[in-house]
Amino acid sequence: MEGVDHLASERSRAQFDVEEMKVVWAGSRHALEVSDRISRLVASDPAFRKDNRTSLSRKELFKNTLRKTAHAWKRITELRLSEEEASRLRFYVDEPAFTDLHWGMFIPAIKGQGTEEQLQKWLPLAYKMQIIGCYAQTELGHGSNVQGLETTATFDPQTDEFIIHSPTLTSSKWWPGGLGKVSTHAVIYARLIIDGKDYGVNGFIVQLRSMDDHLPLPGITVGDIGMKFGSGAYNTMDNGVLRFDHVRIPRDQMLMRVSQVTREGKFVQSNVPRQLVYGTMVYVRQTIVADASCALSRAVCIATRYSAVRRQFGSQNGGVETQVIDYKTQQSRLFPLLASAYAFRFVGEWLKWLYTDVTQRLQANDFSTLPEAHACTAGLKSLTTSATADGIEECRKLCGGHGYLCSSGLPELFAVYVPACTYEGDNIVLLLQVARFLMKTVSQLGSGKKPVGTTAYMGRVDQLMQCHCAVQRAEDWLKPSVILEAFEARSARMSVACAQNLTNFANPEEGFLELSADLTEAAVAHCQLIVVSKFIEKLKQDIPGKGVKEQLEILCNIYALFLLHKHLGDFLKTGCISPKQASLANDQLRSLYSQARPNAIALVDAFDYTDHFLGSVLGRYDGNVYPKLYEEAWKDPLNDSVVPDGYQEYIRPMLKQQLRNARL
Amino acid sequence: MEGVDHLASERSRAQFDVEEMKVVWAGSRHALEVSDRISRLVASDPAFRKDNRTSLSRKELFKNTLRKTAHAWKRITELRLSEEEASRLRFYVDEPAFTDLHWGMFIPAIKGQGTEEQLQKWLPLAYKMQIIGCYAQTELGHGSNVQGLETTATFDPQTDEFIIHSPTLTSSKWWPGGLGKVSTHAVIYARLIIDGKDYGVNGFIVQLRSMDDHLPLPGITVGDIGMKFGSGAYNTMDNGVLRFDHVRIPRDQMLMRVSQVTREGKFVQSNVPRQLVYGTMVYVRQTIVADASCALSRAVCIATRYSAVRRQFGSQNGGVETQVIDYKTQQSRLFPLLASAYAFRFVGEWLKWLYTDVTQRLQANDFSTLPEAHACTAGLKSLTTSATADGIEECRKLCGGHGYLCSSGLPELFAVYVPACTYEGDNIVLLLQVARFLMKTVSQLGSGKKPVGTTAYMGRVDQLMQCHCAVQRAEDWLKPSVILEAFEARSARMSVACAQNLTNFANPEEGFLELSADLTEAAVAHCQLIVVSKFIEKLKQDIPGKGVKEQLEILCNIYALFLLHKHLGDFLKTGCISPKQASLANDQLRSLYSQARPNAIALVDAFDYTDHFLGSVLGRYDGNVYPKLYEEAWKDPLNDSVVPDGYQEYIRPMLKQQLRNARL
Repeated sequence: MEGVDHLASERSRAQFDVEEMKVVWAGSRHALEVSDRISRLVASDPAFRKDNRTSLSRKELFKNTLRKTAHAWKRITELRLSEEEASRLRFYVDEPAFTDLHWGMFIPAIKGQGTEEQLQKWLPLAYKMQIIGCYAQTELGHGSNVQGLETTATFDPQTDEFIIHSPTLTSSKWWPGGLGKVSTHAVIYARLIIDGKDYGVNGFIVQLRSMDDHLPLPGITVGDIGMKFGSGAYNTMDNGVLRFDHVRIPRDQMLMRVSQVTREGKFVQSNVPRQLVYGTMVYVRQTIVADASCALSRAVCIATRYSAVRRQFGSQNGGVETQVIDYKTQQSRLFPLLASAYAFRFVGEWLKWLYTDVTQRLQANDFSTLPEAHACTAGLKSLTTSATADGIEECRKLCGGHGYLCSSGLPELFAVYVPACTYEGDNIVLLLQVARFLMKTVSQLGSGKKPVGTTAYMGRVDQLMQCHCAVQRAEDWLKPSVILEAFEARSARMSVACAQNLTNFANPEEGFLELSADLTEAAVAHCQLIVVSKFIEKLKQDIPGKGVKEQLEILCNIYALFLLHKHLGDFLKTGCISPKQASLANDQLRSLYSQARPNAIALVDAFDYTDHFLGSVLGRYDGNVYPKLYEEAWKDPLNDSVVPDGYQEYIRPMLKQQLRNARL
Repeated sequence: MEGVDHLASERSRAQFDVEEMKVVWAGSRHALEVSDRISRLVASDPAFRKDNRTSLSRKELFKNTLRKTAHAWKRITELRLSEEEASRLRFYVDEPAFTDLHWGMFIPAIKGQGTEEQLQKWLPLAYKMQIIGCYAQTELGHGSNVQGLETTATFDPQTDEFIIHSPTLTSSKWWPGGLGKVSTHAVIYARLIIDGKDYGVNGFIVQLRSMDDHLPLPGITVGDIGMKFGSGAYNTMDNGVLRFDHVRIPRDQMLMRVSQVTREGKFVQSNVPRQLVYGTMVYVRQTIVADASCALSRAVCIATRYSAVRRQFGSQNGGVETQVIDYKTQQSRLFPLLASAYAFRFVGEWLKWLYTDVTQRLQANDFSTLPEAHACTAGLKSLTTSATADGIEECRKLCGGHGYLCSSGLPELFAVYVPACTYEGDNIVLLLQVARFLMKTVSQLGSGKKPVGTTAYMGRVDQLMQCHCAVQRAEDWLKPSVILEAFEARSARMSVACAQNLTNFANPEEGFLELSADLTEAAVAHCQLIVVSKFIEKLKQDIPGKGVKEQLEILCNIYALFLLHKHLGDFLKTGCISPKQASLANDQLRSLYSQARPNAIALVDAFDYTDHFLGSVLGRYDGNVYPKLYEEAWKDPLNDSVVPDGYQEYIRPMLKQQLRNARL
């Protein structure tokens, strides 16, 4: 970041303390210190260079990732990094790799589903990376519906083993990251068969490759499933295919914390509650929400900085043109995404708390909040990942043509991010789960059972069905109570309307299917309310630093009023607000954009991202975009020679009218 | 297409004559015959294979495209293809290449802006490809705002030459396709300077490379600008950068149809109307709208077929699972896109007519319809490209995880398509042009000047401000007159509201900037009305074939009611419809989805795309998806060896705890 800061004048306009905002974004002074230190460590290490990633062939790219992963592990051990620091380091290396699955899925699956004995046997090996594991659940023909998996694990009482087998082509394991080329072991999911009876899907630890020469063990066919979206991007990962031909494993490699198979072949349920599985889901989805705020904030940081650098139109008498960030059309697309990044950050923080709370309750055998926590995290996963995927692409478009260049960083960010909408629960399937929970909540309202947590507002449904929005002037829309009531009323009324429409069907399941599009919209309304309300709750806390809270209040209002504008049909249809009030909200939103404008650059600086992590010429901290774009272009392999390879064979014969005789 | 047809039962359910629908889609029997024949010609030629594109390195990919381009040109000349056939052949080769710009921009620019003499000199060379040309307008620092271009063309009366020069880094030509590595010539745009006076931007023909050895001529720096979004995708194209260091060209290489510079250095306007430029814009944007319907229909075809193949959940007692196309959530996302593809096809057809009409009028010195035609094509370019880009990505998500694989064809389709939202006019900038035209139209309503063409409905503004939607039952929403009135009223009321709000500003330009987000929404409403009304007009024509018109009526209603649902806030806010009527529209929409369901596969078959052109394992005509996905995976270069390159250096030392001593 040496040299001139082209954005210095932007930075000097900020009306708040950026250093204090960094603490708010990071979550704590400690978290900021660790993130800042580790991100600089990664940025300053040439081994972690990533700017050439998009022009490498698949093999080069993959080998490059293996090298980085080994280097990262070497640094982690050399520097004796803590678990927190190691995880931050992997994050800032910013390249999908088998280690994500080893640490993020393989180890947690064993921890969550293994017995004490199994933990003692497998975890030390995994922690030292003496074995590398992945998580093999989905199959070629089976994604969302886990109960439809076809792989079988048949108990053989003669040898005290399970026989793992892929009976059909569609039962091939398909997608698991780290499986294709690297993992030595996998947690695989298969139907447990004992004596011809199907006991449903269970987890098993299976060794896949020889520890001597890395060759697949007998009966195992394994490989990579091929190129995925984007150049660079997720192609650093060996998502894999795996088939079993009667592969035998010892009985003690079934994960037996919840269900066991005895030596005699008896299937036994332990007294560990099955609900623990949902606790794990809450954990995983909580991290996905946190990732959403990271990915969205990166894209927003790039688009905001470049919008301040880029000028277009509006020049008077040959003077400089207008910065595009000054256009209301740009602000009305960009600032809601900036606000969303902060909103997702805070709801992610709250989800971390929720996970702790649920875990403590589970340990005390209190399952009362679990369904609500499960629905809530499912919904927030869906909401934040969809908004983030769309938001990254919107940021790319906000950068004009240059956003289409890989050197902008945005194409790769998008391609890496979008699978989040599909993995760990397809976003639409998840919304239907939320809707199902909401319909249950509504149906129980009369029974005296009080809705808890994020559905507590449903307890005031009578009031919410009748309330009238009190807004008379545009400023009234700045009151948190006004915003909350409008969002609560909208959500409650949409849920109630769905519940009423469902009663028109003799068969409730048929009704649910028929009305499922409406039901997902009710679920979205509920989830948006959660995000808005958690943002408002955050602002009730003490937040130090000059102007910091004021800026967050502006962002919170932008987020809420932007949603209100985007989903205006919901609010008007249900009579929560009037057309006149909608128009006042719109006026207020424009005024909020003007308030956010002078602080925009400082608000993205607060993410504290290094230029290495951002990986974008357009998003450079110093705003020195054009010389660097120009420089970057010449690095493309096509520029290795002035006259391109192929000129003699294909271009020249065309120009010289000699194509007729050419062999092509 | 040999072997079993897994979709045969789907096809047998169709309630209309697919062959006749093919004619409707193609536009005529002749067009269908040509398309069908040429697409099969391309598909059966192994030289045009494209399934390995995404795993090639940039250099391999580019050379591969040069080979295909030469082969295509060879076939075109060998087979003596007509202009129509040649253009279809390039279309079905389906790979962005320098020839797109040569035929689509370089030649048209000379045709449109050259004098008779210039046409006679340059066109024969270009038609035979003895020279290859590109179109160099945008610069590193200047995209949308053509008047901001910095490149200069200074007349030197001593030598009767222009001196072409790039005075700054930001004046570097940047983006032109075909420029980086191939073009020998370019039409470049530069500020004309005579005797120190700036006469604005004009076009010039400049030779870039030697015809002997393809090296750049003295004073010219030229290269590729680097990797773009996606693997494969637009990286087959050599988008380029170009700098001039006082390059001299003869005076007669300025394109002089509209403005001339005499031997004495006098700047003279010809009597050819400047408006001709807008005629060209109408032409180019008309082709973009046609391309939108192609791209969207490809994505829809893939997603529809795979939705019929794929099964998930809903199995009773271990039976087969439900086809995902039977889920209402799938239908409510997929069928509106299917309807949009048809809607864009028909509005594109109409735009072709509009271009002919405008051209005839221009030749008769009638400029009266030009502003309306210009606004209309600008708006439709914006509307259809945005909807198509979003629609392709939605189709990808509708295919679940497998849509993320390159073998689904959807990632590349998306990456190739999205720049259409930015090139030839950024979509938001275009909407603002439409809005400006609408505001002018509204302001002139009192003056007795009757609005023409697509704005004719504004002439009935008094009636449209007061009308009440007559819908009482869901079926009422099937009446074209009801739909038209609702869309006209919505658009008129939004425009009038904007115009009224603008009067609150002392400075109208300031008001326009401040309200620009609202203005773009009014422009969208107007453009959607155009698409809906042209679909309705199409259905007034005689359309032969059993059930064909009935299916198109269903699609037309789906398109309109889907838009109504998506933009419900507009309709309710302006009081065009009531909440009750909105709810009835929703009921009707669900019923329309059910009617479309049995015809869905046949409706995408009617696009008549070969498997080669679709380029998607998921979208295969025969529905034999899973075995082919499995087969495709093994072709990835990573699967060349069982143990990956890098195992010895990086994986083994990690597993064996020997990383500490490794050199990485």
